[in-house]
Amino acid sequence: MSYKSDIQIAREAKKQPIMQIGNALGIPAEDLLPYGHDKAKVSQKFINSVKDRPDGKLILVTAINPTPAGEGKTTTTVGLGDGLNRIGKKAMICIREASLGPNFGMKGGAAGGGYAQIVPMEEMNLHFTGDFHAITSAHSLLSAMIDNHIYWGNEQDIDIRRVVWRRVVDMNDRALRQITCSLGGVANGFPREAGFDITVASEVMAILCLANDLKDLEKRLGDMIVAYRRDRSPVYCRDIGAEGAMTVLLKDAMQPNLVQTLENNPAFVHGGPFANIAHGCNSVIATTTALKLADYVVTEAGFGADLGAEKFMNIKCRKAGLAPSVVVCVATVRAMKMNGGVAKADLGAESVEAVKKGCPNLGRHIENLKSFGVPVVVAINHFVTDTEAEIQAVKDYVAGQGAVAVLSRHWELGSEGSEELARKVAEIAEAGQANFAPIYPDEMSLADKIQTICKRIYRADEALMDKKIRDQLKLWEEQGYGHLPVCMAKTQYSFSTDPNLRGAPTGHSVPVREVRLSAGAGFVVVVCGEIMTMPGLPRQPSALSIRLNDDGQIEGLF
Amino acid sequence: MSYKSDIQIAREAKKQPIMQIGNALGIPAEDLLPYGHDKAKVSQKFINSVKDRPDGKLILVTAINPTPAGEGKTTTTVGLGDGLNRIGKKAMICIREASLGPNFGMKGGAAGGGYAQIVPMEEMNLHFTGDFHAITSAHSLLSAMIDNHIYWGNEQDIDIRRVVWRRVVDMNDRALRQITCSLGGVANGFPREAGFDITVASEVMAILCLANDLKDLEKRLGDMIVAYRRDRSPVYCRDIGAEGAMTVLLKDAMQPNLVQTLENNPAFVHGGPFANIAHGCNSVIATTTALKLADYVVTEAGFGADLGAEKFMNIKCRKAGLAPSVVVCVATVRAMKMNGGVAKADLGAESVEAVKKGCPNLGRHIENLKSFGVPVVVAINHFVTDTEAEIQAVKDYVAGQGAVAVLSRHWELGSEGSEELARKVAEIAEAGQANFAPIYPDEMSLADKIQTICKRIYRADEALMDKKIRDQLKLWEEQGYGHLPVCMAKTQYSFSTDPNLRGAPTGHSVPVREVRLSAGAGFVVVVCGEIMTMPGLPRQPSALSIRLNDDGQIEGLF
Repeated sequence: MSYKSDIQIAREAKKQPIMQIGNALGIPAEDLLPYGHDKAKVSQKFINSVKDRPDGKLILVTAINPTPAGEGKTTTTVGLGDGLNRIGKKAMICIREASLGPNFGMKGGAAGGGYAQIVPMEEMNLHFTGDFHAITSAHSLLSAMIDNHIYWGNEQDIDIRRVVWRRVVDMNDRALRQITCSLGGVANGFPREAGFDITVASEVMAILCLANDLKDLEKRLGDMIVAYRRDRSPVYCRDIGAEGAMTVLLKDAMQPNLVQTLENNPAFVHGGPFANIAHGCNSVIATTTALKLADYVVTEAGFGADLGAEKFMNIKCRKAGLAPSVVVCVATVRAMKMNGGVAKADLGAESVEAVKKGCPNLGRHIENLKSFGVPVVVAINHFVTDTEAEIQAVKDYVAGQGAVAVLSRHWELGSEGSEELARKVAEIAEAGQANFAPIYPDEMSLADKIQTICKRIYRADEALMDKKIRDQLKLWEEQGYGHLPVCMAKTQYSFSTDPNLRGAPTGHSVPVREVRLSAGAGFVVVVCGEIMTMPGLPRQPSALSIRLNDDGQIEGLF
Repeated sequence: MSYKSDIQIAREAKKQPIMQIGNALGIPAEDLLPYGHDKAKVSQKFINSVKDRPDGKLILVTAINPTPAGEGKTTTTVGLGDGLNRIGKKAMICIREASLGPNFGMKGGAAGGGYAQIVPMEEMNLHFTGDFHAITSAHSLLSAMIDNHIYWGNEQDIDIRRVVWRRVVDMNDRALRQITCSLGGVANGFPREAGFDITVASEVMAILCLANDLKDLEKRLGDMIVAYRRDRSPVYCRDIGAEGAMTVLLKDAMQPNLVQTLENNPAFVHGGPFANIAHGCNSVIATTTALKLADYVVTEAGFGADLGAEKFMNIKCRKAGLAPSVVVCVATVRAMKMNGGVAKADLGAESVEAVKKGCPNLGRHIENLKSFGVPVVVAINHFVTDTEAEIQAVKDYVAGQGAVAVLSRHWELGSEGSEELARKVAEIAEAGQANFAPIYPDEMSLADKIQTICKRIYRADEALMDKKIRDQLKLWEEQGYGHLPVCMAKTQYSFSTDPNLRGAPTGHSVPVREVRLSAGAGFVVVVCGEIMTMPGLPRQPSALSIRLNDDGQIEGLF
């Protein structure tokens, strides 16, 4: 049996005019700023007008640790949203925007897959509504203003060795990771070391995704630390005077983007912070607005539950006053097998034993997620080679953990395939079992917050922090940043810091290599192991085969 | 008497929905891709459908050498377009898009002024429809792919000392003019010298503005020379394999943007190549499409007539098969006085003598423009302090040159003020006096083309080219590039290469410092004097006062 490709399916979509999708949500035409006929931004005026409505129920979709087999977290998010609508619930989907650069490295696709997709998927993977370009512009303006400030006399006495504000570009460009700039003589400034990150790694991106509105955005931008003076005191963005102009550049980017699924259900695709050095969630403004417009809002978090869901709970929900009613943890039989030791090439053969051996990874995520006081449903994202026995093995294991696993076939069948999942999720959400709380209080010390996550989520014996790092954390506490949550940057492939350690390891420790203060976003980034903020292109980048065909359609992107 | 600011006037505009503006041009709604309610891109399908229609008449608006007093070339272009519509002609306006970065340096505004403006003017000076961001992305992709190619084995044997493809960012960032990249060890590539230009200076921008369609665009992108091998042979963009993916990134940017004037007349705002190292005109696709939709198309060229109009005629019209019916040369009494030796601070006082003394600058432009076989109308862009006697002095001078000067008050009065100008322009266009031809043939040698422009337009004794430059030109001729036009890069402030030499100098010579081949755009850039491809920010950048006010309106940008 052969299956259609994602792009084939997407091209066959019977899209409704976006004004009609908005109309069904009760958004008047004048509050929808169209970008083409299938995308629109929602006005702040409308968002303000619904602020006093009651909230719908929030459902988080997360996953086991990612494996090369793929889990389908976004696909399941879309499939569940469609499924809820199918069973008569008013549901919206909230996912992140895709980063442009990486699509030219590996074949992309951040819009779901099969019959559970958001459209227009090509545009979602290209310029979309220009939000990321606006973030790049705002970031670049501040970059230019910092060096310009130094050039024209450096009134703030910036130590040019301690400019912590790096530049960004939305492209995988390893050659820019580390540079020396301002070369070429007096007219070009004072030579110094510098470097570029990819746009999604910008603190501006993290802020846009956490800010409540443009006023809050401007304040947070002003709060960002861009450099240190010779006396080690911080220089803020507002000392450079850039936050007002940056806000102007971001005024449209701040508004949620309305699009639709293949089944014409509404989705907000907005924001896309790096799930590594930021929290990796759909924007607060999109999620909170969706909760006013729908009875169910399905959203996702980056990477596996140890990283993404933890940050969703401890950072996004804490900061935005959100509380999920259910968490859906996505697993696949194939990923269980890989966790059980099967190589990717051998995934085709049935192996119930390997599935059972891999299940403890899932089990630990279930346990962790429950520790936030939220009921868990496991979605087994069906793959055509899965056998009945393998699927049953996962279901049995999950039942043994006091949770329920539901097979879902949305990839193959759309909402027809996710109906059972949707019913189970709705049933649990309506039962009101959730009693959400972050796993650490604001007033806990920064070091203890790190230890709490390492012990309770990663199940490590301890976090290893040397004196320099402990002193740094104390200094920030003295400066008034002690109440911030911590944002862990760790490999997504393992509970430990060793990406090859699959399953549910214990007995490990977590070395903290570095801590960084994102004073505008409002968290302390805790770097455990290598952290890559500028990816490179592979030997054969997908760009080599991306082109327009004779019909003007895009080939090679998916 | 006090006047409203441009932004005040723009905010009071009674805009029509852009679909309505398009409808009046005969563009069906499905062929208009909206960007908000007041901007739309025109589909290629529609453009193809009108290809066989007869062309309207093309009117070029150019100017004397710019002075700090300002001439109002865009304002006059808009005013003339509105004036033509007022007197019952079906007219369209074609102008360039604004570069984002420079607006954060000096107060901006590329949408005209007073009552002769294009709206939405704020967005035109910010992200607009994202065309420049797409160009930045496409350019950046190629940049990353070149270094990635070198990183993964350098099959093309690129000499890393001879990578001529510079990076771009749409921001005034002098610190990036000259850098060393790929520092930090093996994983980051091979260290080399590099640098950034501003996006408008990208050859991708020049190509987008000269390409006929996406196929032509892709071919030209492939033709760009990005580096040289150790054996000095050129490495083309297509050797890197980037042109297909770049075309995908540019597919929407290639389509003209429809907006409107304050008087609801249609305008295409599309493309914005640097008028220095490129040709500086509205895109060929926009201009040629407008000629199918209107009886009169008013467009402009960058800088003064010696640079902008010369390139419009010798590059854009030659390449696109266009022929202007009339040229309007914009002058102001104030600029005449500055050419006559008056300082900016003293412009308020009447000085007929200074006006007369400055007129020869205008006279030479008239003579030059006529040498292309096109009749010339001088538009005296009225300024409130101009006296009757001063205006009469300009009119008398122009009459003595065998041309006609018309006072135009569009800035103050909109089309009511430009009616006389419009009538005169229409009358001359309809008389069919034009017999346009570029001033040099394709088959002339590159060196002779340079001499022709220097002698016939700049009125220099000669162009000075040393052996290295002459040899380079010969080499390109041998390689098959001899048929290309030349694109002069020279100060816009003088006919000579000395920016302080106002008026109509003679006896000077033009030193050619450097020649560059833009093989994709299809011209040889001839650098005479300093050429700045990455501006810096001033001591007090306008960004410091740009912000959103409490009503969410932009302050400080204009």
